[in-house]
Amino acid sequence: MRTQVGIIGAGPAGLMLAHLLHRAGIDTVVLERRSREHVRQRVRAGVLEHSTVKLLRAVGLGGRLDREGMPHHGLSLRFDRADHRIALTDLTGRAITVYGQQEVVKDLIDARETAGAPIMFDVDEVSVHDPAGDRPRITFTDADGTARALVCDVVAGCDGFHGVSRTAFPPDALRTYRREYPFAWLGILARTPPSHHELIYAYSDRGFALHSMRSPEITRLYLQVPADERITDWPDDRIWDELAVRLAVDGFDLRSGPVLEKGLTSVRSVVTEPMRYGRLLLAGDAAHIVPPTGAKGMNLAIADALDLSRALVPFLSGRSTELLDGYSDRRLHRVWRAEHFSWWMTSMLHRSPDGDPFEHRLQLAQLRYTVSSLAAATSLAENYVGLPYDLSMPGSAYP
Amino acid sequence: MRTQVGIIGAGPAGLMLAHLLHRAGIDTVVLERRSREHVRQRVRAGVLEHSTVKLLRAVGLGGRLDREGMPHHGLSLRFDRADHRIALTDLTGRAITVYGQQEVVKDLIDARETAGAPIMFDVDEVSVHDPAGDRPRITFTDADGTARALVCDVVAGCDGFHGVSRTAFPPDALRTYRREYPFAWLGILARTPPSHHELIYAYSDRGFALHSMRSPEITRLYLQVPADERITDWPDDRIWDELAVRLAVDGFDLRSGPVLEKGLTSVRSVVTEPMRYGRLLLAGDAAHIVPPTGAKGMNLAIADALDLSRALVPFLSGRSTELLDGYSDRRLHRVWRAEHFSWWMTSMLHRSPDGDPFEHRLQLAQLRYTVSSLAAATSLAENYVGLPYDLSMPGSAYP
Repeated sequence: MRTQVGIIGAGPAGLMLAHLLHRAGIDTVVLERRSREHVRQRVRAGVLEHSTVKLLRAVGLGGRLDREGMPHHGLSLRFDRADHRIALTDLTGRAITVYGQQEVVKDLIDARETAGAPIMFDVDEVSVHDPAGDRPRITFTDADGTARALVCDVVAGCDGFHGVSRTAFPPDALRTYRREYPFAWLGILARTPPSHHELIYAYSDRGFALHSMRSPEITRLYLQVPADERITDWPDDRIWDELAVRLAVDGFDLRSGPVLEKGLTSVRSVVTEPMRYGRLLLAGDAAHIVPPTGAKGMNLAIADALDLSRALVPFLSGRSTELLDGYSDRRLHRVWRAEHFSWWMTSMLHRSPDGDPFEHRLQLAQLRYTVSSLAAATSLAENYVGLPYDLSMPGSAYP
Repeated sequence: MRTQVGIIGAGPAGLMLAHLLHRAGIDTVVLERRSREHVRQRVRAGVLEHSTVKLLRAVGLGGRLDREGMPHHGLSLRFDRADHRIALTDLTGRAITVYGQQEVVKDLIDARETAGAPIMFDVDEVSVHDPAGDRPRITFTDADGTARALVCDVVAGCDGFHGVSRTAFPPDALRTYRREYPFAWLGILARTPPSHHELIYAYSDRGFALHSMRSPEITRLYLQVPADERITDWPDDRIWDELAVRLAVDGFDLRSGPVLEKGLTSVRSVVTEPMRYGRLLLAGDAAHIVPPTGAKGMNLAIADALDLSRALVPFLSGRSTELLDGYSDRRLHRVWRAEHFSWWMTSMLHRSPDGDPFEHRLQLAQLRYTVSSLAAATSLAENYVGLPYDLSMPGSAYP
């Protein structure tokens, strides 16, 4: 088998890259370890930045998104037993859209299949060979168990944090930066209308809680729990009770309903530098993980794919290597911005198990300032809705 | 001896409180452990917020300040081997003024002595009695060693972090929040014109450095050093060499000159809550310490004194206890804002001795964002020049 760009992983980064390259007339093959059904159902993030929505619309993926996605013009910081709204759109001119990651993935798979472009599910034993050479190869077994080799001009590693792409870098060719947090998120999907029309980020004495949603009928809720928590210790009743306590403010009633799904999400920060080795390029979670608090993971993955697709077009046509040579630096600048914002939101809103009282007071001072200063509220908002793709590079004046 | 307000400590908080109360026709006595000469020479902070300058002018202390103080309309964050200016005045409409704390102290002592109001230096064995009663007393020995007692309506504890006032609180009547940092500041005063017309906050691989000044002829410079550093390990040449390395950017020449003074400043955060016990009120460093990075210590002390003076007038005339009852809460709201800002500046600009590489990358991401986002630059600037005294209380909308 032969292709121009072999893409490992059918998550948002890999599928978006495939979609953009296909539109540019570039030949791609997508390889995915999990089944088609699994990938289409996998519940993940649910907040799209303004620029992500604009991009999806611009490349023909706005249909269902515009019908089913829910634009949000604000979010609530809940602390001191009151709601403090951050008016995203008033502050930045931009909004977010609530639309599940699996819906983006479905739209991308549907578009690819409609176009008749190759996507292979249920592959196994994936391995990247000779990434430093001119003709890197991906070997794997297909759904039938047959050993295959895919010869590429370029390999895109979009196979997530546990993927194999990163392991194809020589150990001394990459550096990994990480931070583990002493907590995780226990999330549920419940069949009940949201209890509030906007997202609520709640800082309480018992820890962080998040009220979110997937649709007018499906609510998404999260609780901060210890990092080593077992999900079996959390029967549904305990979850609802704890959510009710952490989200309690006057006039708020938490609507409960059947729990459709329950899971633990780890909270960690990881960045791999650089995002390129020879003709192997990383995108999305394969290169970086953000804590979920900033809602940046899927948006970063899609922005990686956009940048990489723009860089590959002149590279593959032999016109110029310049954009591809700058890919890692450009993306890492944005990745670290998102890492910082996600760390900041996380450290402002979670209670450390061993948190000293000084830290708690700092958190409250930060929260109170953030909702009472126009500059501070705007800073949160502009990061949350997403900085424009053309944000100035370091060293420049204000945009 | 009898007075309305007995004031312990002749630093900025105590002297300013005495000055404001004297103007309001309230009888005060100031007691100070150190000599008059020591207090007038003691080198401390040097940045006045906009509101502090306005207040000093409004109460007859603007003469020498306006002649000798140096208004600054911006400051520089130096990192990535370049200067990034925060345009304080353009961003906030307010400026800072460089004017040494000892100059403020001299002006206050001169004003008090001119008015013939009592201030006793070289007192010792100071102790506060019966702060919960209607007639608290201060006992002490005067400069001649004679035991004295001062009966007061109210005692103001303005005697700094190591003072006795706080120890007059019953142990269970107060709570102390603290954070120690693993570094200190090594500061010098040098007879040489400043090397740049504005302050420079430098983040370098070898740690933080600060370029400041006291006058057109006197430069103030600081180096981050380990918390347990000995000053004897830092001969002048080593200090200049290290400053030159940390402050290095193209086109910058560090001017050196005779070192007039050299000292270590500890870097810590401390807040005591509440700031009142009965008729004993704390103000300034007696109640809270901020790391020096935010230049907030003297400004907080003077703002404490202003609030306390306004609260004492109706209290002492028997009209209303309301303002005094709210003193601690009002001030602590502002104190925690300053503590957070000072912690934030400190953690953004210093290298931790054991700092993991992830933290270093976060710091760079924060710095790069701060100088490229209008909202983030404004947030730094509005805190640095000082939030207006009438800043909204928690829970309110944007000011």
